[in-house]
Amino acid sequence: MISSLDARTGSVVATVAEETSEDELDALCRSAAEAAPELEALGRRRRATMLSGMAATLEARRAEVVQAADRETALGEARLNGELTRTCFQLRFMADVITDGAYLEATIDHAGDTPMGPRPDLRRMLRPLGPVAVFGASNFPLAFSVPGGDTASALAAGCPVLVKAHPAHPATSLLCARTLAEGAKAAGVDLPVVSLVFGDAAGARLVEHPAVKAVGFTGSLAGGRYLFDLASRRPSPIPFYGELGALNAVVVAPAAAKKRGREIADGLAASATLGVGQFCTKPGLVLVPAGSSGDSLRDALAGAVRALPAGHMLTERIANSYATGSAALRGLSGVQVLAEGATAGAGTQAGAGTPASDGEGGGWWGVPLLLEADAGAMDGPLGEECFGPVLVVVRYRDAAQLSQLLERLAPALTATLHADLPEDEALARTVVDTTSEKVGRVIWDGYPTGVAVSWAMHHGGPYPATTNALHTSVGAAAVRRWLRPVCYQNFPETMLPPELREGPGPEHSVVRRVDGALVAP
Amino acid sequence: MISSLDARTGSVVATVAEETSEDELDALCRSAAEAAPELEALGRRRRATMLSGMAATLEARRAEVVQAADRETALGEARLNGELTRTCFQLRFMADVITDGAYLEATIDHAGDTPMGPRPDLRRMLRPLGPVAVFGASNFPLAFSVPGGDTASALAAGCPVLVKAHPAHPATSLLCARTLAEGAKAAGVDLPVVSLVFGDAAGARLVEHPAVKAVGFTGSLAGGRYLFDLASRRPSPIPFYGELGALNAVVVAPAAAKKRGREIADGLAASATLGVGQFCTKPGLVLVPAGSSGDSLRDALAGAVRALPAGHMLTERIANSYATGSAALRGLSGVQVLAEGATAGAGTQAGAGTPASDGEGGGWWGVPLLLEADAGAMDGPLGEECFGPVLVVVRYRDAAQLSQLLERLAPALTATLHADLPEDEALARTVVDTTSEKVGRVIWDGYPTGVAVSWAMHHGGPYPATTNALHTSVGAAAVRRWLRPVCYQNFPETMLPPELREGPGPEHSVVRRVDGALVAP
Repeated sequence: MISSLDARTGSVVATVAEETSEDELDALCRSAAEAAPELEALGRRRRATMLSGMAATLEARRAEVVQAADRETALGEARLNGELTRTCFQLRFMADVITDGAYLEATIDHAGDTPMGPRPDLRRMLRPLGPVAVFGASNFPLAFSVPGGDTASALAAGCPVLVKAHPAHPATSLLCARTLAEGAKAAGVDLPVVSLVFGDAAGARLVEHPAVKAVGFTGSLAGGRYLFDLASRRPSPIPFYGELGALNAVVVAPAAAKKRGREIADGLAASATLGVGQFCTKPGLVLVPAGSSGDSLRDALAGAVRALPAGHMLTERIANSYATGSAALRGLSGVQVLAEGATAGAGTQAGAGTPASDGEGGGWWGVPLLLEADAGAMDGPLGEECFGPVLVVVRYRDAAQLSQLLERLAPALTATLHADLPEDEALARTVVDTTSEKVGRVIWDGYPTGVAVSWAMHHGGPYPATTNALHTSVGAAAVRRWLRPVCYQNFPETMLPPELREGPGPEHSVVRRVDGALVAP
Repeated sequence: MISSLDARTGSVVATVAEETSEDELDALCRSAAEAAPELEALGRRRRATMLSGMAATLEARRAEVVQAADRETALGEARLNGELTRTCFQLRFMADVITDGAYLEATIDHAGDTPMGPRPDLRRMLRPLGPVAVFGASNFPLAFSVPGGDTASALAAGCPVLVKAHPAHPATSLLCARTLAEGAKAAGVDLPVVSLVFGDAAGARLVEHPAVKAVGFTGSLAGGRYLFDLASRRPSPIPFYGELGALNAVVVAPAAAKKRGREIADGLAASATLGVGQFCTKPGLVLVPAGSSGDSLRDALAGAVRALPAGHMLTERIANSYATGSAALRGLSGVQVLAEGATAGAGTQAGAGTPASDGEGGGWWGVPLLLEADAGAMDGPLGEECFGPVLVVVRYRDAAQLSQLLERLAPALTATLHADLPEDEALARTVVDTTSEKVGRVIWDGYPTGVAVSWAMHHGGPYPATTNALHTSVGAAAVRRWLRPVCYQNFPETMLPPELREGPGPEHSVVRRVDGALVAP
């Protein structure tokens, strides 16, 4: 049985569904495979309308959806209202991306002579892969779950979606799936474009089902690697796009520390504890210069963390994992506690991530924690992500030591640098060169937790940040994950997809590369 | 010891190298990793010059290279001269692709307000992955080997290449690697941008080496899958782009069979036996309508195949595999032999792919073979690629049976349709819809063996045609395999890569998407 829990009390509120059986899963996958050519045949314009319809229906059910998500995640209505706004923006943004049509990479080489002899007429564009499995995240019940970025980009590409509902928010998942179906129907699309699967066994079978052609996943390294291995070991392997989180490093350069250490400390404390530290882009490590301005920054950071309250974590498992992980970090030799936030209500012990019994002060709590580690202690657990509101300060003596520390870091989603030009320029160049080799996004004078939905966003990075460094789960390019090229050689005009015809007509006109030159629609 | 054999006699001509030891491999990988940032820092213009320099040096050594390749492959000087021309064209084409610069996908979102609040300045472009391993093909000692498409596209992207030399042509590999290094040096690039690795054990270690960030492979399904599994099982998995070949189907629609059956038969016989059938795009199956015009086409095909000579195959292993595979096909129930080409010289037995002893008539031979199979026999071995000059004819009664046959086919690199409009239109639509779901290129009234190097070419397809349906090993998009996005958030102008600056300057000006709109350079 799949139960919905109240994250603030830890108690079961409702039974949402049964685990999806093998036969049910097979039927869902077959339906998705049958719907795939129909979804593609709708064309970009009608799929854009469908995505907008889904956004409108989600907005119409805003109160209900936010309430369900808040009960299951304890993330709070303000945050979840914002997340719903983002989710709807994302659906509409994906509608814009496919309306624009450049994502098709439409390319035409007219027949002609080449140094290798005559070349036939060749026309290439991207087409949908087929049904896509999506594994939603615990920490974004909307924007990275059933109605989230993977779903939006896959539907935009023309791929039906089968979502494995996250056990942290099954009721929200069910409500969202129904809402999306309603939105599609309102836009005139009566196809099983979003199906829901419950249970871990069904999730694993989903990855292995022959009808599924790609997988999007947002979650832990262990869970993601397990499913990546399943996808890779299939008789017919499929791409697995796992966004697995990271230890996101922040470097504060000396002049920045001196000029605005307090401001950076406040911003960093807020970023590291936003959503009780349950962001894959949470800054987990800050490299602070030795010396007095670094001391002040560290002390300001400690003050800021001390003033923060404990927060409800998403699930018992996440809270336990945070409790264990943060306890292990503070127990390491070379590590000391700089500050802790306020502990939780009655029934909880002092310390991070302590699960509590039901009732007053129930649910699962995470307590903000600031540690300081010697530079020499940086290998091992300190170099890995600890999901939750913990931030580790490491001091560096000079640019050379900073470089060494950065070289030792594993690839991540982001790296951040606070630097003031021209004083910090030499150090800044080293940091940018070193970190941009191993992260997907480098942030200057900011904080990594905000991940804007836009044309230029890249949310990814080399393993273990993701399982595929070429792709992003946020931004316009997210659609590329669900598409493959097809080349049409020497085709009669009428047999070509409309976007590749000599005369595509206004509805199908997109930017194309024709005989080597880009041609505007 | 790595020996070079004369493919026409089967005898060892020279010892080329020792197998690369573990230490040597590690040193090569480390050198490549050190060269990677330098190769990127050269910038697009100097890398383009390097590629052109490589092409020029290859051309300067044309006679020597063609002679070495001809001795090791028996492909003939005419074909190898053409292949060298293609190889040089490909190197220069990749120089054009990076000079154009659109491949960078440079994208700028200026800071601004959004429905989710203020958005920082975001700038994204593609950057090289790092060192790339390339496994050259047996059947294209130049165009898909050391100086081939994987190498050209990886170098263009800015990735140093480590090539595992194919055992079918080690001397050619060594000569080409030296020639490329010479070309790079002549263009002012004195970096280890192309290294050579010998031996299967070293090849496997190469795929597993931490410094290697992606693999390009052209070869067999078994070999490709083995290495794909190694790449996927790494502690830090890397993308593996395997082009594994396919059973390429050709459909002849009724009106086309009637109007120009003889022409199609001649073209098909030539395509299926080109290079002794040793093309990954060789048509392996032709679906011919029942009835008299189909009979005539089949008879013309049989006549054409009967008139063809046997040819030297690339290696003993390939010839043995062809002998075994084609013997298995002709032994299947429901299969009959329509025609065989002439058998080979002295010392060979009648039949396909018989290895012979050294001396006169030595080497390894492949005899063209035309089979006919009942539609009911199509599952099993008849549905798989048999590498060599064999083509199977299957007759179809009507469009419905044709559809069923096409549905049963595995994914492939290509599908081909000969059809005449308007008579064949309904059947043609079905064939195009069905096949374009599972191949990378659909050819109208042509033959699949030619794979043009151009902007619109796609040489790929779903597994088992390749291990990654999103990518191509031929054409402009081949460069995409070796690149990953990096996003720069809120960066000062001077710290950005030149192509992302507000004022990139004429040398770095490329097409960009700025605030959602494409802007020409």
